[in-house]
Amino acid sequence: MSSLRHLLAAIREPTLLLDTERVHRNIERMALRARRAGVRLRPHFKTHQSVAVGAWFREAGVEAITVSSLRMAADFAAAGWRDVTVAFPLNPRTMGQVNALASRIRLGVLVDAEAQVAALPAGLAPPLRVWLKIDVGFGRAGLPWDRPERVLELARTVAACPRSELAGLLTHAGHAYQAESPAEVLRVHDESLARLRALRDAMAGAGLPPPAISVGDTPTCSLAETFPGADEIRPGNFVFYDLMQARLGVCREEDIALALACPVVGLYPERGEAVVHGGAVHLGKESLPGADGEPIFGYLASLEEGSFGRVDHEAPLVGLSQEHGILRLPAERLLSLTLGQTVCILPVHACLAAEQHAGYLTLDGRVLPRLERRLPEAPRHDSRREERG
Amino acid sequence: MSSLRHLLAAIREPTLLLDTERVHRNIERMALRARRAGVRLRPHFKTHQSVAVGAWFREAGVEAITVSSLRMAADFAAAGWRDVTVAFPLNPRTMGQVNALASRIRLGVLVDAEAQVAALPAGLAPPLRVWLKIDVGFGRAGLPWDRPERVLELARTVAACPRSELAGLLTHAGHAYQAESPAEVLRVHDESLARLRALRDAMAGAGLPPPAISVGDTPTCSLAETFPGADEIRPGNFVFYDLMQARLGVCREEDIALALACPVVGLYPERGEAVVHGGAVHLGKESLPGADGEPIFGYLASLEEGSFGRVDHEAPLVGLSQEHGILRLPAERLLSLTLGQTVCILPVHACLAAEQHAGYLTLDGRVLPRLERRLPEAPRHDSRREERG
Repeated sequence: MSSLRHLLAAIREPTLLLDTERVHRNIERMALRARRAGVRLRPHFKTHQSVAVGAWFREAGVEAITVSSLRMAADFAAAGWRDVTVAFPLNPRTMGQVNALASRIRLGVLVDAEAQVAALPAGLAPPLRVWLKIDVGFGRAGLPWDRPERVLELARTVAACPRSELAGLLTHAGHAYQAESPAEVLRVHDESLARLRALRDAMAGAGLPPPAISVGDTPTCSLAETFPGADEIRPGNFVFYDLMQARLGVCREEDIALALACPVVGLYPERGEAVVHGGAVHLGKESLPGADGEPIFGYLASLEEGSFGRVDHEAPLVGLSQEHGILRLPAERLLSLTLGQTVCILPVHACLAAEQHAGYLTLDGRVLPRLERRLPEAPRHDSRREERG
Repeated sequence: MSSLRHLLAAIREPTLLLDTERVHRNIERMALRARRAGVRLRPHFKTHQSVAVGAWFREAGVEAITVSSLRMAADFAAAGWRDVTVAFPLNPRTMGQVNALASRIRLGVLVDAEAQVAALPAGLAPPLRVWLKIDVGFGRAGLPWDRPERVLELARTVAACPRSELAGLLTHAGHAYQAESPAEVLRVHDESLARLRALRDAMAGAGLPPPAISVGDTPTCSLAETFPGADEIRPGNFVFYDLMQARLGVCREEDIALALACPVVGLYPERGEAVVHGGAVHLGKESLPGADGEPIFGYLASLEEGSFGRVDHEAPLVGLSQEHGILRLPAERLLSLTLGQTVCILPVHACLAAEQHAGYLTLDGRVLPRLERRLPEAPRHDSRREERG
């Protein structure tokens, strides 16, 4: 604890803190879970977006990863990753980037429409690994699970295309986040896998090669012990976890590995509130319903056992503007705060909070950069050619 | 229009587009409004955070600015700005940075507690310009407007401190954003100014020097013709405006100068939706209530007259995850879209959307960087000394 207090004493602006022991523990636990279940762990790196954190996954035996953009794929390829799935719908206009990447790494992409397959560039060697994106009930991207004839049709198109290799069926059961209980998360899990197995069987019955099945989201992968029919899982958030996952019953409070260190800049005992330097530009504006249904943007963390958190449920962040956060506190807790003191706030959604920062400060004082943001590209004069791909 | 279409045809990932003609018009209009009302325009630069956009303000006669952090103050000081108010509560632990800045520029800071004044470093020359932050009803930071005795007490402390110069009374009437109509915005405006004038009169009555009055938020500054008693206004958002301001009746749709260019990556006519590459990490997760009360995260912009927008009210962004946006569209509009096409989405909150990007692409193809994000600082061994300031 003394080291965290010492660290906080040196912090003067909102800073993203990382408990690396918890990160290692979260990685180990998920890797063990995957080994026991006999599935490949292909973690989603969009949450941490850090080459250093990525290296810890490699130490845990991970060799294949998931990312959410071609840009992220290129950055992790540059850091030595050789097997990358871009779990985001393929944009037919990005074939130049796809081709460049596919020549260097084993690249997987997602499609749910003929136009995406038709756009695949000629001369890919080896052929691109193409996953059929299936919507198992989330209602975002993908072919609907209950339209097997469309899945079969697209599978045939991919299998017949010399520029692609049919990797399998892939889904993200994002509706697991709307579950009210761990049991409900597991119902989503069972239902999703059953729907994918039915499609797989339909494909086998139609004479297509049996597809691999890729699933993954932190709630189901954190709770399920088995993944019947699945070949790989792609959770991402579990590396840090957050208040949303704790609320779902998916992690323990002491698994949350990320906190925002926030200077206290205002004390208002007459209304039972403190203002911290820590706003939407530091936490992302994601909320959970509080006891009275009003949105909560984070909770104060107690400082215990050398780290932040547990969650101080009596100290919610009840307001969030661009740079300010409003913390509601019981009177005695408020009286113990001083102006300029730095406190730790646990984030509602770790992926969005992390996205707001250039890097992490570990509890032992190291700085871990995230992948760099880039400026937009000025349009090039040959853009029309590129566009045809 | 042809140039915007040409630009969009070259865009392959979410890109923040800036209509510089609209920006210039928004700046000119607010500068004129301030001149007519006889108040100084000290615009808040936290919205654009761009040295290039800042220079356009200078061309419009602006010499003094507002920012929301010492870091931003240092960056704009480096770009030549010599009169900067940090409109964020002073953190007593940042006196090293305050001292360094105050030696180079005319620096203003905000306080609402004795502890902040007590922390001011000795040897400031000239003395620091200290504003008393007043809470006129928003309920975030500041001394409550209805506790004049506390305002007087702090004013005396600042006036008596040789390291500070009492600049005046400053407020941000953020509750103007909760108004239901322009008339209600103007009621907030009138009430805020009346409360500040009463405090000013109380200070004069107590023998204190008459304080300047600084107010500012985009809703009131965009609608009010007069600012009785105020010396300066500090709006920020108006440089870009956004859907929230248009909904408030504060700007016209065609004043919105910022849009997110998003590739279309999924078409789902069976459910009347398209998926675009454009999520919370590109727009910020701010929402407005839609017709049915459900949150709306943006609207498709029609492309007209060489720019994006007006708002296509029949095409709301009804879902927003990390990288995906879900656009709901009438059938015929959906059929006109193609995979890979880039569309423009107008943001709910321009400040938060802009914060997600390293820079802007102007409609004529120039790249304007925003201030750079920085890595956290590793703790220094002399941090304890710094902390004492």
